[in-house]
Amino acid sequence: MYPNDGFRELGRQECLRLMAKVPVGRIVFTRLALPAVLPVNFRLDADGAVLLRTAAASELVRAVDGAVVAFEADDVDAARQAGWSVVVTGPAAVVTDPAEHARLSRTGPVAWVPAPREVFVRIEPELVTGRELVGGRTLYGVNLAAKDG
Amino acid sequence: MYPNDGFRELGRQECLRLMAKVPVGRIVFTRLALPAVLPVNFRLDADGAVLLRTAAASELVRAVDGAVVAFEADDVDAARQAGWSVVVTGPAAVVTDPAEHARLSRTGPVAWVPAPREVFVRIEPELVTGRELVGGRTLYGVNLAAKDG
Repeated sequence: MYPNDGFRELGRQECLRLMAKVPVGRIVFTRLALPAVLPVNFRLDADGAVLLRTAAASELVRAVDGAVVAFEADDVDAARQAGWSVVVTGPAAVVTDPAEHARLSRTGPVAWVPAPREVFVRIEPELVTGRELVGGRTLYGVNLAAKDG
Repeated sequence: MYPNDGFRELGRQECLRLMAKVPVGRIVFTRLALPAVLPVNFRLDADGAVLLRTAAASELVRAVDGAVVAFEADDVDAARQAGWSVVVTGPAAVVTDPAEHARLSRTGPVAWVPAPREVFVRIEPELVTGRELVGGRTLYGVNLAAKDG
């Protein structure tokens, strides 16, 4: 609808390359039938899956295990009105396979403060979408929305 | 569950004071029955409502008008493992009152790139929650999750 709105759609590999640059994203899920969002540090697996590490007994695990979630990361320079935003959407599940848990204990995200019993949550990258905001007089945010029209 | 996890719950006024410092947040909603999240620039109204400005014909408007949404803003320094995160949850609605639209045209958020026909979306601040991450060896993200346990 707004072909010159300053946005560039990003390909899957470009999205994952950008996401890998930032340490923190935001998991979007449903809690008590309400939309919920929680910042969380993460790491990308080789196949683009989003990996989180959290307490086994956490509310987050109860809320997202087996559910489809979105995971968003961005890097925006408001002064330049430029940056990017990537969203991975797919089912989330606690990693239960012992070998996989052991692998992620070596290569997965590290808890900034350890919990007594930790699990890894894996978000399958079924849908990976992203946009680059090219800056200048082009916008941010509002145009993200306008672009959808 | 983790009383010394480095988090400090923020009061409503503190949340709104922090949110007012950043130009961009993320609206969390449901699109085609899937969780969706979109960065967007915003402004806070005097009562703490989140104000967005977008194209009347946008997909965002169709998705959120009349729905309960979450709006998240944060500012995290990963190197210091410190920062804050605030979430406003409440019903979103397009502002239809002409006088209110006129007021927001003067005082509301400014589109970084104008759309042909713009509307304001107002998110009622029914629930305002936030946390400050105090830094040091305390964590981020993973502990946000652990804190929920």
